[in-house]
Amino acid sequence: MEFYTPKSRSDLEEGSGFAPKFDDRGLIPVTTTCVKTGGILMQAWMDAEAIKQTLITKEAHYFSRSRQELWHKGATSGEIQKVINFKTDCDQDSLWLIVEQMGEGCCHVGYPSCFYREISLEDEGGRLETTLTKK
Amino acid sequence: MEFYTPKSRSDLEEGSGFAPKFDDRGLIPVTTTCVKTGGILMQAWMDAEAIKQTLITKEAHYFSRSRQELWHKGATSGEIQKVINFKTDCDQDSLWLIVEQMGEGCCHVGYPSCFYREISLEDEGGRLETTLTKK
Repeated sequence: MEFYTPKSRSDLEEGSGFAPKFDDRGLIPVTTTCVKTGGILMQAWMDAEAIKQTLITKEAHYFSRSRQELWHKGATSGEIQKVINFKTDCDQDSLWLIVEQMGEGCCHVGYPSCFYREISLEDEGGRLETTLTKK
Repeated sequence: MEFYTPKSRSDLEEGSGFAPKFDDRGLIPVTTTCVKTGGILMQAWMDAEAIKQTLITKEAHYFSRSRQELWHKGATSGEIQKVINFKTDCDQDSLWLIVEQMGEGCCHVGYPSCFYREISLEDEGGRLETTLTKK
């Protein structure tokens, strides 16, 4: 697939052409939320191929920075993420993926969301509290 | 404030020490959601100072990559973001800030959220549809 080349800043920000802005590694951040709870499941990265495969298969694909390869989320664990909605932001340098999470959750540590710890607001944030239970 | 230095991978992932992992620019991505709607308002970046000021003032501070400086969101526009909750993920390289958005919204283009356009799932994503109305 070809991405759009915006003709101006207003075309980038208010036009209808999808023109994801990749960083110098060829990646764009994506935040994935759960269609049922509304909460954030994880934050990851996509390259052009991950975007393409996500759109074609309607299942979340990311770019694994540790393995430096395309990552079809859940392909081995069964914790597939079915795409419900996919959004981009004003300057198209960030993506928001809304999914139906298959299996018990998304996090390799064993929690339903990767964001299972809150930063304490009481003592200027030196301390974390775990707020979810393992799946 | 001093951040924690994890003693092991399990300490990083399951411990109670806040040890944000900054990239080679000294930045960490943060996704900001609205406590009222649950939706994502914006995705931005924090450096160590932005985290510190956010925790001290309980108002969102980011690092502006375009201006290369600390950015107290809403300081000039009035669109302050009051911190309700602040989370980190499993490997502590991403943050989730839940805020009460003051004013009419967060986006400089005029929408209540920066994510006002959906990527079409019908034609492999070449096209965007605007789904919010301006504030």
